[in-house]
Amino acid sequence: MNYRKEIERIVAFIQNYCANTKFTNLLIGLSGGIDSALVAALAVQAIGKKCVIAYNLPHRNSHPESAADALLMANHLDIPLQTIKIDDLVEKYFEHYAPDASSLRKGNWMARIRMNILYDQAAKHNALVIGTSNRSEYLVGYFTQFGDSACAFEPIAHLYKTEVWEIAREIGLPDKIIQKTPTADLWAGQSDETEMGITYPVLDSILKYLTEGLPKPDAEEKTIAKVKQMIEKSNFKRQMPPCLERI
Amino acid sequence: MNYRKEIERIVAFIQNYCANTKFTNLLIGLSGGIDSALVAALAVQAIGKKCVIAYNLPHRNSHPESAADALLMANHLDIPLQTIKIDDLVEKYFEHYAPDASSLRKGNWMARIRMNILYDQAAKHNALVIGTSNRSEYLVGYFTQFGDSACAFEPIAHLYKTEVWEIAREIGLPDKIIQKTPTADLWAGQSDETEMGITYPVLDSILKYLTEGLPKPDAEEKTIAKVKQMIEKSNFKRQMPPCLERI
Repeated sequence: MNYRKEIERIVAFIQNYCANTKFTNLLIGLSGGIDSALVAALAVQAIGKKCVIAYNLPHRNSHPESAADALLMANHLDIPLQTIKIDDLVEKYFEHYAPDASSLRKGNWMARIRMNILYDQAAKHNALVIGTSNRSEYLVGYFTQFGDSACAFEPIAHLYKTEVWEIAREIGLPDKIIQKTPTADLWAGQSDETEMGITYPVLDSILKYLTEGLPKPDAEEKTIAKVKQMIEKSNFKRQMPPCLERI
Repeated sequence: MNYRKEIERIVAFIQNYCANTKFTNLLIGLSGGIDSALVAALAVQAIGKKCVIAYNLPHRNSHPESAADALLMANHLDIPLQTIKIDDLVEKYFEHYAPDASSLRKGNWMARIRMNILYDQAAKHNALVIGTSNRSEYLVGYFTQFGDSACAFEPIAHLYKTEVWEIAREIGLPDKIIQKTPTADLWAGQSDETEMGITYPVLDSILKYLTEGLPKPDAEEKTIAKVKQMIEKSNFKRQMPPCLERI
């Protein structure tokens, strides 16, 4: 992949989507992680920094560095960053109705509350919500349906995480953002690779084999089988809800 | 359409979806309206009343009859009805961040908060969220993306609203549910037909003409053009967010 040309292709995709839908503003949830940082940088290249609206939506369980890194990225791009704390919208519900809920339930709730805020703020600013999913997490279903995957369009969902790192370097994101440990940041100490039980380089080599017919990687059979199962078990998240045909 | 046979076909669809996904419980948001009432009745026929979990999620702006009608329906089916008030989850946000927000923004927020609650309660009960969209509202985009349209599968999304009424009669729903004025019930006095500017019988005849090639109905050209535009403008709500192909 020619990273420079890929950046141009994504920038054109963003420009075309805005032109076709007659939207001039894009709104992004800037988490402090590399995916949303890269999308913000691409959006600024595509439509200009005055048209990119960034929100950081922290929770008390968010890593202390996350908000700092979101701000670092906003400053890097010279765009304002607005902050809305989601604690009340999380605790209000769980304290009353589910004090014993698992981390997973709380995490999914948080991802969906963030979607709700981003969509409401987008309505206020007459903006589209731009997506930040990458192909690796999208294929294995490592996201919340109707949560962090909710958006108008996906500018980097065709890129594996390992490609996101390369393109982030090419576009000149701050090293601190590129080098941090990938995390959905929904609870303390969460790490994508630990939670999925696989590193992104190995995951991506297996995904290329399973979904693109690239040569079989040097990975254990049981790891390949596990990734295959993750893809199959998350199919429902990548489709519209099925419905009957009319007869 | 043979309504009796159509009921059997939907019941089989629900049974097959549960069998294929290995879920035994279905969770439904029972609003008091006819769509969710019909889906609840179909779900009970399909998997039995012990496996259908119903929630009413009222807001202070909900019509006073709505909660009563949801309870009427739950009693009719002999299933328990749980209630979670969404006021706090709505007002907490709007008081702080958007005191001047439009009814539309508040309505979309409410629909998405309800989605979040249904999905969290479904996780708790190891259940699937069953959808309640009908074909008429689905085609013209009269729903909130990632809100009331969010579900595992859609058992009546192939049925026009006028067919929902007929099948509700066939399956024996209470007259009070069948006869009430259709409303999304997001703010006081809201009515589907007033808000869309068209009655369901006219809308459905135009939709059949535009999407199924049935004979052109006796409606004004400007009304037909308007419905066509509603379909086109809401295309994005019926698709997964677009993404680039890999090259």
